[in-house]
Amino acid sequence: MLTLYHFPLDPASRFIRLILAEYNLECELVTEHPWEARKEFLLLNPAGTLPVLVDGTSAICGARTIADYIDEAYGIKRGTGRLMPTLPSERAEIRRLIEWFLFKFDADVSHIFMNERVLKRFIPNGGSPEATALRTGASNLRYHILYLNYLLQQQDTISGDSLSYADFAAAACLSTLDYFGDMPWEAESLLKDWYVRMKSRPS
Amino acid sequence: MLTLYHFPLDPASRFIRLILAEYNLECELVTEHPWEARKEFLLLNPAGTLPVLVDGTSAICGARTIADYIDEAYGIKRGTGRLMPTLPSERAEIRRLIEWFLFKFDADVSHIFMNERVLKRFIPNGGSPEATALRTGASNLRYHILYLNYLLQQQDTISGDSLSYADFAAAACLSTLDYFGDMPWEAESLLKDWYVRMKSRPS
Repeated sequence: MLTLYHFPLDPASRFIRLILAEYNLECELVTEHPWEARKEFLLLNPAGTLPVLVDGTSAICGARTIADYIDEAYGIKRGTGRLMPTLPSERAEIRRLIEWFLFKFDADVSHIFMNERVLKRFIPNGGSPEATALRTGASNLRYHILYLNYLLQQQDTISGDSLSYADFAAAACLSTLDYFGDMPWEAESLLKDWYVRMKSRPS
Repeated sequence: MLTLYHFPLDPASRFIRLILAEYNLECELVTEHPWEARKEFLLLNPAGTLPVLVDGTSAICGARTIADYIDEAYGIKRGTGRLMPTLPSERAEIRRLIEWFLFKFDADVSHIFMNERVLKRFIPNGGSPEATALRTGASNLRYHILYLNYLLQQQDTISGDSLSYADFAAAACLSTLDYFGDMPWEAESLLKDWYVRMKSRPS
């Protein structure tokens, strides 16, 4: 039985929830507030970060490590429908893109909106959302949208011939912004078409 | 032929140099100053971060992605002496520790010392080293040393029965601090003994 410690609006947690659902892996979800630094949670992951996947007696910490673990323990048995390619250089490109979305997009955009719109409500004396920070996030987001459209000009997916972890990492980031109403969708853009296709998936 | 874009004192670059040397993989080294945002470098890695490994026509970006690539393209052929285990749960633990050293240790300690002792010299109007920042780094370092000693109480390595990527990620971080003279070595600690063993390796 799998257990995922997550926070619903955290893009890294959403990424893992999406790939668990794509693989039909049953998983108990436990909502964790990492800023509370709960002792039992720090024993699972001393870094205190989300998400953490518990599989039997193993605690797998961090979205990238969990994604690799799911690929090696479950994805590899799939054949078609596996969300990671088999060639080392193609796997490296998917990992670069996962890092791009979960670290760079997160630092430039997601974390700013999360902090202003969500985390400040939870943290004592967190204050109210700051317009300057939100404007910075929105400005950074425009460059990221250009890059996403550039990637989608090469093929129908973020990378490669079929859906991969890269698509779900990107969808996880954009779906949080979409939920906040902060995503400036342009009619008839490649990015919007791709997002509609991603949203139509059962997961 | 492999080419590594690196910065000599960057712990993530050192980590990759160490594992290339452990595997006797010949590699041309190119020193890169990522803060200059050189256009040709950004074409290799749009995130603008180090290290980047070029293998033929593939640019592999980021230390964790490079480490996985080296394992999948070269390490897997090794048998004994491979620096990653084969079990998914054990691989996940090594990846957790790589992330611990290259992200958490870096944010808490390495980046502070690098910024104050090195980067400020390179960046125009960077200013002089700040004593408060260096004290914060030194204070954070004490907790990390306790954790390293705790890990070394379980076995002779950072994780598992034999040397792994985790040992080289830790050694890369500590060797930068050692070079600066910022590492408070205590006589007869498990950590010092481990570091002496690591330093005696040919790589």
